[in-house]
Amino acid sequence: MSRHVVVREIERADAEVLKGLAAEGASTVHEADGRRGAFTPELHPIQQGAAIAGSAVTVSCHPGDNLMIHAAVETVRPGDVVVITTTSPSTDGMLGDLLATSLRAHGAIGVIMDAGVRDAAELRAMGFPVWTRAISPQGTVKASPGSVNVPVVVCGQVINPGDAVIADDDGITVIPRERAAAVLKKAQARTANEAAKREKLAAGELGVDMYHLRPLLADLGVEYL
Amino acid sequence: MSRHVVVREIERADAEVLKGLAAEGASTVHEADGRRGAFTPELHPIQQGAAIAGSAVTVSCHPGDNLMIHAAVETVRPGDVVVITTTSPSTDGMLGDLLATSLRAHGAIGVIMDAGVRDAAELRAMGFPVWTRAISPQGTVKASPGSVNVPVVVCGQVINPGDAVIADDDGITVIPRERAAAVLKKAQARTANEAAKREKLAAGELGVDMYHLRPLLADLGVEYL
Amino acid sequence: MSRHVVVREIERADAEVLKGLAAEGASTVHEADGRRGAFTPELHPIQQGAAIAGSAVTVSCHPGDNLMIHAAVETVRPGDVVVITTTSPSTDGMLGDLLATSLRAHGAIGVIMDAGVRDAAELRAMGFPVWTRAISPQGTVKASPGSVNVPVVVCGQVINPGDAVIADDDGITVIPRERAAAVLKKAQARTANEAAKREKLAAGELGVDMYHLRPLLADLGVEYL
Amino acid sequence: MSRHVVVREIERADAEVLKGLAAEGASTVHEADGRRGAFTPELHPIQQGAAIAGSAVTVSCHPGDNLMIHAAVETVRPGDVVVITTTSPSTDGMLGDLLATSLRAHGAIGVIMDAGVRDAAELRAMGFPVWTRAISPQGTVKASPGSVNVPVVVCGQVINPGDAVIADDDGITVIPRERAAAVLKKAQARTANEAAKREKLAAGELGVDMYHLRPLLADLGVEYL
Amino acid sequence: MSRHVVVREIERADAEVLKGLAAEGASTVHEADGRRGAFTPELHPIQQGAAIAGSAVTVSCHPGDNLMIHAAVETVRPGDVVVITTTSPSTDGMLGDLLATSLRAHGAIGVIMDAGVRDAAELRAMGFPVWTRAISPQGTVKASPGSVNVPVVVCGQVINPGDAVIADDDGITVIPRERAAAVLKKAQARTANEAAKREKLAAGELGVDMYHLRPLLADLGVEYL
Amino acid sequence: MSRHVVVREIERADAEVLKGLAAEGASTVHEADGRRGAFTPELHPIQQGAAIAGSAVTVSCHPGDNLMIHAAVETVRPGDVVVITTTSPSTDGMLGDLLATSLRAHGAIGVIMDAGVRDAAELRAMGFPVWTRAISPQGTVKASPGSVNVPVVVCGQVINPGDAVIADDDGITVIPRERAAAVLKKAQARTANEAAKREKLAAGELGVDMYHLRPLLADLGVEYL
Repeated sequence: MSRHVVVREIERADAEVLKGLAAEGASTVHEADGRRGAFTPELHPIQQGAAIAGSAVTVSCHPGDNLMIHAAVETVRPGDVVVITTTSPSTDGMLGDLLATSLRAHGAIGVIMDAGVRDAAELRAMGFPVWTRAISPQGTVKASPGSVNVPVVVCGQVINPGDAVIADDDGITVIPRERAAAVLKKAQARTANEAAKREKLAAGELGVDMYHLRPLLADLGVEYL
Repeated sequence: MSRHVVVREIERADAEVLKGLAAEGASTVHEADGRRGAFTPELHPIQQGAAIAGSAVTVSCHPGDNLMIHAAVETVRPGDVVVITTTSPSTDGMLGDLLATSLRAHGAIGVIMDAGVRDAAELRAMGFPVWTRAISPQGTVKASPGSVNVPVVVCGQVINPGDAVIADDDGITVIPRERAAAVLKKAQARTANEAAKREKLAAGELGVDMYHLRPLLADLGVEYL
Repeated sequence: MSRHVVVREIERADAEVLKGLAAEGASTVHEADGRRGAFTPELHPIQQGAAIAGSAVTVSCHPGDNLMIHAAVETVRPGDVVVITTTSPSTDGMLGDLLATSLRAHGAIGVIMDAGVRDAAELRAMGFPVWTRAISPQGTVKASPGSVNVPVVVCGQVINPGDAVIADDDGITVIPRERAAAVLKKAQARTANEAAKREKLAAGELGVDMYHLRPLLADLGVEYL
Repeated sequence: MSRHVVVREIERADAEVLKGLAAEGASTVHEADGRRGAFTPELHPIQQGAAIAGSAVTVSCHPGDNLMIHAAVETVRPGDVVVITTTSPSTDGMLGDLLATSLRAHGAIGVIMDAGVRDAAELRAMGFPVWTRAISPQGTVKASPGSVNVPVVVCGQVINPGDAVIADDDGITVIPRERAAAVLKKAQARTANEAAKREKLAAGELGVDMYHLRPLLADLGVEYL
Repeated sequence: MSRHVVVREIERADAEVLKGLAAEGASTVHEADGRRGAFTPELHPIQQGAAIAGSAVTVSCHPGDNLMIHAAVETVRPGDVVVITTTSPSTDGMLGDLLATSLRAHGAIGVIMDAGVRDAAELRAMGFPVWTRAISPQGTVKASPGSVNVPVVVCGQVINPGDAVIADDDGITVIPRERAAAVLKKAQARTANEAAKREKLAAGELGVDMYHLRPLLADLGVEYL
Repeated sequence: MSRHVVVREIERADAEVLKGLAAEGASTVHEADGRRGAFTPELHPIQQGAAIAGSAVTVSCHPGDNLMIHAAVETVRPGDVVVITTTSPSTDGMLGDLLATSLRAHGAIGVIMDAGVRDAAELRAMGFPVWTRAISPQGTVKASPGSVNVPVVVCGQVINPGDAVIADDDGITVIPRERAAAVLKKAQARTANEAAKREKLAAGELGVDMYHLRPLLADLGVEYL
C-alpha cells in the first residue's frame, strides 16, 4: 500500500445523531461514552459560543506545509469537521480565510487544527469555528506529501475518518462512528437527569447527601473537625 | 492527627474590607502589601471583567478526583472564594456547572482552580467567575480522600483558610486575613495617589522627572546619545 | 561605547506606509516580505480586533525592572509602537495603565511586551492595544540599567529601532524600515489578487485546480483511493 | 463489553525480529517504516546506552493511581516492554524499584512510562531501562480502575498490545506487529547501505553530490554567493 | 516588621535524624510522611547519585539578582542545605562555583535552586550537589533586596527555615523540622518492610496477590478477558 | 537579492582567540562581554564535559527539512561550529551521525541545533559535541529551500556568520567576531582575578565583606534579626 493516500469516500455518522451530539456538547458526550474521547486541552477555540458536531475528514501534513489541506477539500461533504495534524509538532499558520472559505464552500462546519491558523479576525468574522494550538502569521509551503482520510492522533486521541467529533467551549471529544447513536442516547439521558439535580443543588441540597458520599468519606478516613 | 480532614469552621476576613479589596484589584493590593501575594500567571479567568475578593475556602484533591469539592460545599459561607488544588498537577475538568450551582447556592462568589474546569459556556452564562489552569471535557472520579480548609499552595503562594483572595483580569493575589484591613488602607492610599499622577502623565509629564529617576539613570551609567 | 544607552533620535518608517501596512495585517505583510519577520506565537493580544503598524521604539530591561520603560517615554513620537523585552525571560507585570497613559501621551499607539503587563481591564478600557507574554499582578522595581533604541530580539526576530512593526489578532511581524514601502506594494498586490481567488473558492472551485497542485501531488506519489 | 478490561493473552512479535529491531534502533526503524511510528520527544531515558525492542504490554491508568500496573504484571512474558499511560496527563512517580522488580521477574525488559517514575537510582543500578516523562518522588494510590492490553496513545502514536516497541537513546518508535519482519529487512538494508556512505562522507565527499541535491537546490532558487 | 530580613539564627533538625533521612531518600520519606512534601518535578539534579538531607537555609531573591545568596552565607552552618528562590520565575545563572565554594566553606552540603546555576562542570568537579530549574550562562546583578531564612514556596511546597530537606536522584522532599524524627522512624520501618517484598516479587509473586488487590479490581468492575 | 542564498566565504574569528575563549567558557565570556550573548537555556548538551569555541557557520532550514545542512557542508572550515535553526519551531531529528561525519570531515568541531538531532549514542561515541533542543527519531525531508551563512536568531541571540560561538556544559554564548579578541582579554583578566577570590572564599571569608555589600544591604533596608 502506498504511504501517502487520499481516500475519497468515507462512511459518515448520521446527520440527526450529529445534531443531537452538538446539542449535548463535548463534556457530556465524553461522560456518556464512559469518560472516553476527550482531547487533552492544548487546542483552544478562537471564538466563544460555537458548538458543533460533525464527521471527521482527517488530514496529515508535513509540518509547515499545507498542501494536503488543499487536497482534502474535495473529500469534504456538508456537515463535516476537518481535523488537521502534522507529522511532527508545528505552530505555523497552516490555514487562513481563503482555505476556510474553500472548506466551507464544500460543506465543512469547522476545523480542528493541531498546528496554527492565521487570519483569525477574518475567521471570526466569517463565523467559521476553529480550534487550534496557535494563532501565527507564519506562512507555509506546498512541497511535501501527506494523507487525507487516514487515522490520525491528536491530543491523545485516535480520530478515524468519519468519526463523530464534538467541539465547543470546553474543547473536543471524539467518538467512533459506530457508537455515535448509542452514546447520544446516554448523553440525552444524562442531561435529562441533570435538570432535576441542578434544581436541588440550587436549592442548597448537598452533593455529599445527593450522591451518598458521606459513607465513602468516612471509609476513606476523612475526619471532620 | 488525621491526614485528611474537613475543617468545618474557619475565621474569615471582614466583609467590608473584602468589598474594598475587590474594588482595589489584585495588582494594587499586591503592591500595597509590599509586593507580596501575587500568583504566578498560570491561571486564567474564563471571563472578562469579573473582579472579586473573598475569604478562601481551600480544597486539596487527588488529581482527577473531585470528591473533596463536594465535601467542601457545606463549609462555604456567603462571600467565600473556593480555592481548589490537586496533590499533583492536573488539567482535568474537576468542576462544572452543577458543582458551581451548588457552591453558589451556599454563597460562593467564585472559584480559583489549580486544575481544569468544564461547562465553560454555562459557567459564563451563570455569571459565576472562575480562574483556572485549563478548560477540559475530561471527567473525574470520586474515589480518593483529600482535605478541606487546610493550608494549600497554588502558583507559588500559600493560601490559608480564611485568607483574603482577590481575583480579577490581572490574576490573583492573596493576603493573610490578619493583614487585610491594613493592606486595604494602603491600597486605597495608593489609588488616591495615582489619580493625580495619571493626570500629569496624560498631560505629557515624564515619569523620569515625576519619580526623580534621572539621577538614578546617571548613577547606573546609562548614557544618552 | 557605553554598555547601556538611550538613543534619543531614531529614523522612522513613513507614516503613510505604516497606515497601509496596518490595513494589510501581520500575516499578509509577512508573506509579502518573502515569509520573513513573523514572531513565534508566544505573545498574545489582550484585546480582539486591534490592528496597528508603527515604528519601533525598543526597550531592553533587566527582568522585573521597568526603569528603562520610563526612560523610553521621551523618545516616543506619534505613531510609534513600543517594543519591550528583558535580558532574561520574565512574566512580571512590567507595564500598567499609568505607564501606558504616559506612553500614549507621547504618541505611542501600542505596546509589544516580551514579559508581562497588568491593569489589563484598564488597558482594554483605554483602547490601548497590547501584545504580551503574560498578564500578571507581579510588580517590578526600578533599580537596574538597560537600553532604549538598541536592536532587540523578540520571539525569534531582530527588531531595530525604527523598524516597521505590524500587530493584529494574528500576532506580530517586523520588517526593516528600508523595505517597508516596497513590502507594502507587494502586500497590496497580494490582497488585490486574493479577492478574486476568494470568490472562486467560495463558488466551490478547488485549490488543487486553481493552484495547479494535481501534478505536484502525483509527482510526490500521493495516491487516490 | 466492559469499560475496564485486562486482556490476558496477546499476540506477540517474533523474538528474532525484535532482536534485530533492537540492533537497528528507534531512528533507523522509523525511517525504514516510511518515517512512521516515532514518539514525540517528551519521554526521556533515565539511563544512557540502553537499546531494547519488545512486544508491547499496554497499561491505561487513572492519573496518580498505579493499580493497573500491578494488574498487568501477570500478563507479561519474557521479552515484553511495558507501555504505561494515564487517562489524563500526570507526572507522578507511578513506578519504583519494587514494581520494576516484579515486572522483570515476569520477563519485562523495560518500561515506557507516559507519566513519572521514582527510585531512579535503584532502577539504574538494576540495569532496568526506563523511558519516562518525569522523575518524581510523588506517590500514588490504588483506587481507580483502568485497563491492560488495550490500544493506548502515547506521544502521538497508537500502541496496540503486541506491537513492536523499539527504544534507545534517540527515543521510541512503534511498529505494528504485522509489519515488524518486513520493516526489519528494510532497516537492515538501510544500515548496510549507510556504511559505504559513512566512509565516503568521512573522506570528505559531499552529500549534495552523493545525493544529487545540486539540481534540487537550483530548482528551488537557492543562489550561491 | 521590616519587609526584607536576614534571620541569623534558626532552629535546625537533628544531625543524626538528617543522616537517617538521607539514607532513606526523598521518595521513601515522602511516603512515610503520609505522601506529603514532594516537590513537583521541575528541578533536576546536575549530577547522578548524590543523596543528601539537611536543614534548610532559605533565600528569597529578586529575579536575576543574587545579592541575598551572598547575604545568606554567614547564616549557614555545617550540614545545611541552601534553598533559593526568586520572587518571580527566573532561569538566570544565580549561583556559580565561587558562591558554591563560599557556601561550602561555611558547611553547606548542597543547593536547591528554583532558578538557574552556572559553572556546572566546576560544581560537578567540586562534588557539590545541586538541584536546579536551569543551567544558564546568564549572569545576575546585586541590586535588589530580598530575605534570608523566611518561609519560601518552591515547586508547590512551603519550606520553613530549618525544615528537613531531602534531595536525591528522585527529586526533593521537605518535612517540617518537628516531624523529622517521627517520619524517619516510619521511613525506616517502610524500608525494612520492603526488603521482604522485593524478594517475593523477584521470585515472581504477584503484587495483586501480595497486596490483596483482586477483590478491589473485581469491585471496580475490571473484567478479565 | 535572492531570498535563499548560500554564502560560500565568510570572515572568521582568530584561531588563537577561539582557543582562548573555549578555555574561558560560555559563562565567563558572557560576563566579560558585559553580560551579553548568553542563549536562553532551552538547548542542552547531549554530552558532559565538552567545551568548544569556533566561528559560526549558520544554517536556516524549513522545519522538518535538512536540505540546507547538506548545502552548508562545503562552506565549513576547520574549527567551525555549525549553528542550525528552522524558520519555525521544530523538534525533528534534523541531524544524525552521517551528517555529523560529513561536517567533521570538513573541520566542524560541533553543532548547535535549534531543533532536534538523532543517533545520539553514535554522536556521543564519535566525540562530536552537540547542543540541541530535542533528541528525536523523527526523520526529515529534503524539499524546501533555506540559507547558509546568513544572520540567524537562536535562543534570543543574533548569530552572524563568523561570530565566535562558545559552548560548554553551561550552555552557549555568542560574541561578534570583531569583539572576540578584546573580550578574551577581559575574560582572562576575570579568571585570573577569580583564583584569589576563590581561595579567600574557601577560607571562609564572606562575599558580603569581600564585595563590600553590607552598606548596600543597609541602604536597601534589609534588616538583620
